[in-house]
Amino acid sequence: MKKFTITALAFGLCFSAFAQDTPDAAVVQKIRKEGLENSKAMDIAFNLTDVSGPRLSNSPGLKKAQDWAVKQLTDWGLKNVHLEAWGTFGKGWQIDKYYAATTLPYYHTIIASPKAWTPGTNGPIKSQVILIKADSVADLAKYKGKLAGKIIMMDQGTPLASGVKPDFSRYADTTLAQMAAAKPQTAGPRQRPTGGPMADRMAQMMKMREIRAAMSAMLVEEKVGLILTYARGGQGTFFTSNGASYALDAKPVSPELEVAAEDFLHILRLLRAGKPVEIEADIKTSFYDQDPQGYNVIAEIPGTDKKLKDEVVMIGGHFDSWHAATGATDNAAGSTVMMEAMRILKAIDFKPKRTIRIALWSSEEQGLFGSRGYVAKHFGDPKTMVLTPDQKKISAYYNLDNGTGKIRGVYLQGNVAAGPIFQSWLTPFNDLGATTITINNTGGTDHQAFDAVGIPGFQFIQDPADYNTRTHHSNMDTYDRLVEDDLKQAATIIASFVYNTSQREAQIPRKELPAPQPARP
Amino acid sequence: MKKFTITALAFGLCFSAFAQDTPDAAVVQKIRKEGLENSKAMDIAFNLTDVSGPRLSNSPGLKKAQDWAVKQLTDWGLKNVHLEAWGTFGKGWQIDKYYAATTLPYYHTIIASPKAWTPGTNGPIKSQVILIKADSVADLAKYKGKLAGKIIMMDQGTPLASGVKPDFSRYADTTLAQMAAAKPQTAGPRQRPTGGPMADRMAQMMKMREIRAAMSAMLVEEKVGLILTYARGGQGTFFTSNGASYALDAKPVSPELEVAAEDFLHILRLLRAGKPVEIEADIKTSFYDQDPQGYNVIAEIPGTDKKLKDEVVMIGGHFDSWHAATGATDNAAGSTVMMEAMRILKAIDFKPKRTIRIALWSSEEQGLFGSRGYVAKHFGDPKTMVLTPDQKKISAYYNLDNGTGKIRGVYLQGNVAAGPIFQSWLTPFNDLGATTITINNTGGTDHQAFDAVGIPGFQFIQDPADYNTRTHHSNMDTYDRLVEDDLKQAATIIASFVYNTSQREAQIPRKELPAPQPARP
Repeated sequence: MKKFTITALAFGLCFSAFAQDTPDAAVVQKIRKEGLENSKAMDIAFNLTDVSGPRLSNSPGLKKAQDWAVKQLTDWGLKNVHLEAWGTFGKGWQIDKYYAATTLPYYHTIIASPKAWTPGTNGPIKSQVILIKADSVADLAKYKGKLAGKIIMMDQGTPLASGVKPDFSRYADTTLAQMAAAKPQTAGPRQRPTGGPMADRMAQMMKMREIRAAMSAMLVEEKVGLILTYARGGQGTFFTSNGASYALDAKPVSPELEVAAEDFLHILRLLRAGKPVEIEADIKTSFYDQDPQGYNVIAEIPGTDKKLKDEVVMIGGHFDSWHAATGATDNAAGSTVMMEAMRILKAIDFKPKRTIRIALWSSEEQGLFGSRGYVAKHFGDPKTMVLTPDQKKISAYYNLDNGTGKIRGVYLQGNVAAGPIFQSWLTPFNDLGATTITINNTGGTDHQAFDAVGIPGFQFIQDPADYNTRTHHSNMDTYDRLVEDDLKQAATIIASFVYNTSQREAQIPRKELPAPQPARP
Repeated sequence: MKKFTITALAFGLCFSAFAQDTPDAAVVQKIRKEGLENSKAMDIAFNLTDVSGPRLSNSPGLKKAQDWAVKQLTDWGLKNVHLEAWGTFGKGWQIDKYYAATTLPYYHTIIASPKAWTPGTNGPIKSQVILIKADSVADLAKYKGKLAGKIIMMDQGTPLASGVKPDFSRYADTTLAQMAAAKPQTAGPRQRPTGGPMADRMAQMMKMREIRAAMSAMLVEEKVGLILTYARGGQGTFFTSNGASYALDAKPVSPELEVAAEDFLHILRLLRAGKPVEIEADIKTSFYDQDPQGYNVIAEIPGTDKKLKDEVVMIGGHFDSWHAATGATDNAAGSTVMMEAMRILKAIDFKPKRTIRIALWSSEEQGLFGSRGYVAKHFGDPKTMVLTPDQKKISAYYNLDNGTGKIRGVYLQGNVAAGPIFQSWLTPFNDLGATTITINNTGGTDHQAFDAVGIPGFQFIQDPADYNTRTHHSNMDTYDRLVEDDLKQAATIIASFVYNTSQREAQIPRKELPAPQPARP
């Protein structure tokens, strides 16, 4: 530890031009000690996952976790801790009962989950399964009048491949080197393919979508008992996809189960072979529409510098999850790390120059709604680029939402000027595997809401772990998938980044402001 | 194909000393064509798994599969097709309903299976879960009078590790080379460790066993509602273990669920943290004791050579499985391959010199009962080594029971003299990855019953595939895990081995007869 301190100081002397971006080794060392030796990360994660349950937008599970976070952040001594509405979301939803099993050709319990925001079966049902074969909307006519109360499935499903690659991986040095060597890219406007196999595939997709829409309406009209849908995955893991609409005025849909691949394919093979399959099921779900508002959890460590205390460093991650598990890596992990980073800064009694603010977003999974709503309310409209005065006060926003994997570096989102600053801030954590600055973008989560209005918003490079193979939106995204050492490392590095950002003389440099988005015709 | 034929003939000419063990290339070529191009392996496997269901000893699923096999083997033109009793097994058992879910702290369906031969819950039950902490039998006293109708679990379970190795693997050339280079071993008598960590571990195991036995009796006496037991595995896969006794006069046991690791550990973490967990469950199981006999499926292609037709080549694999899935790799795979090998030989209209007999064993999983019973009845007693005249008539017994993996070679079980013969027989299949003869033993399945009475019994070396990682005794041992090309390859090679064994002038050489087993004091 002593040796590390000297090295960091020496670095500071050599590159005096970057002195303001050179970490204060003593403070970084305190952060590191607190983060790695006194971590509460697994306690936080336990409360978000095992104790709270699935945290689907506006569900009782999300509310429970939000209330716990408000209390916990308050207990740690953060200020201005509150739930803040970001706008109208719609209905909450949760599973109250799920049971399904084949009773013919023999008894076998089915691993599955109701699709989010679908209704239950209105009591136990039992029926032979009807296999629907439809290549066009017209093909559906033959099923009219035959589906009331029946359990049905579409004739589609992909045979399973065996796992010849490990579920869990870390980035190789060569991959990180490629990321570091990436050049800034200017992305042209996305164009639709006008011919070739890609266009064929899109045409096929459009046709399937048309059939599905017609099917969906017909099935409601026919009062179908239950739809079985193939869920991607394997070996007991299955991935959920977007369910029905959560809008207050959503059209009615049929009860629908996403069925683990093994169980779905079992039934499909039997039906294709003309063997009768009978299923019994009992599904209850609840909708919650008393308060359609969506909320984010907000809390602060107030700034103490006369000149800078109105400026803010923000960190965050989305707090909501899907419903088939407890969303441990998506995104209790990121939420845990961000809460733990705040705890670390309080634990070392850090008095920042700028205010430090944490935001735990909701409804990220439906379209970054929590962060976009917050940004719209506080900082401006990315469509018109009409900005508020507060937009200028946010030095940077740091986000974490790529699973349990430890931090290997930072995505600059094209912000070239931030590169040397972050490179310097990573130096004390090179020994923990965090070394890489890449000019690349990463998308799909809440830093984009900030980036869209010209506030520097960043995500960290994280080891893939088993995010894509096992956990991302799956029924197996549980506490068991969290790697304690990785969460500790991430919280420590982010606490240090926040510390540096809050003390830095200047704000983090900004990219050119994005152009207003032209209105769609 | 042409090229292969020439090579095989050339080989035959070069090594004329081994002429009788050199495959007739033309017949082998016919077998290969039928096995690789007209395979029915997946149809057979479908009927054994998807259609029949779990094939636990003496269960309705096993009976259904046996009846199907008898009909199928008859339809193919095999002779003497019948179910043959091997002795008394005990009770059959099957699951009629399984449902369990946490209702506190929130609703979550539990992936699990009743342990084989345990009773159901006698209707739906619901209770808070009681965590049992017992380091000694005396510790159990504190729970007396508190467990009636309750759901309980033991305070034990192993945190999950992430998969850093692939689920599916094949043998590397280096591994096969090591097997081929192995020297004959003379195993000394097994000795119990008298000190050190191994002895400590055994003492610990004995203590745990003592606690479990005392616990088991107490729980029945207390009329506990349901026991939750940790099942090895992860990510939705769980492995079942031996359940309760299947004996006709078995002592009563409590209802017991083997719970997938994620769900078990979730409940365990909550209970350890003092958070109440409530579970509702409804389990029904049935016992079958009308016919306690165990049966094997037997069928033949009769020999046609005057001198040799009373001699027999046997092939087989066990037909029974565990209950949480359809036993696709354990051992529908081996049964499929053996049935397919018989079909291939019939399809090419092969008239063997020696009789060819297939046996599909039952109750292998409880102790090789089907094969041992058959051997005892027909060939002799391995304890006394009193042998029947028929013992001399079996040239060899070939078995398959290591999953879906293709054949990479043969375990000689110490039968050195068989090595060059089998090496020669593998030559036409070297291009399919079958190359390796090892002097090594492999255990745990039905060839041992033959080996024990001095009949040459062999298992094949098979690629591991995902047998140990995902399928062996698991809830994910389904049709999806079968690799079609591997089953085809195995059936083709075994059909060829059977052909060669049936035509060979002499029988397969025998090892020295095993010594009678001394009676245990």
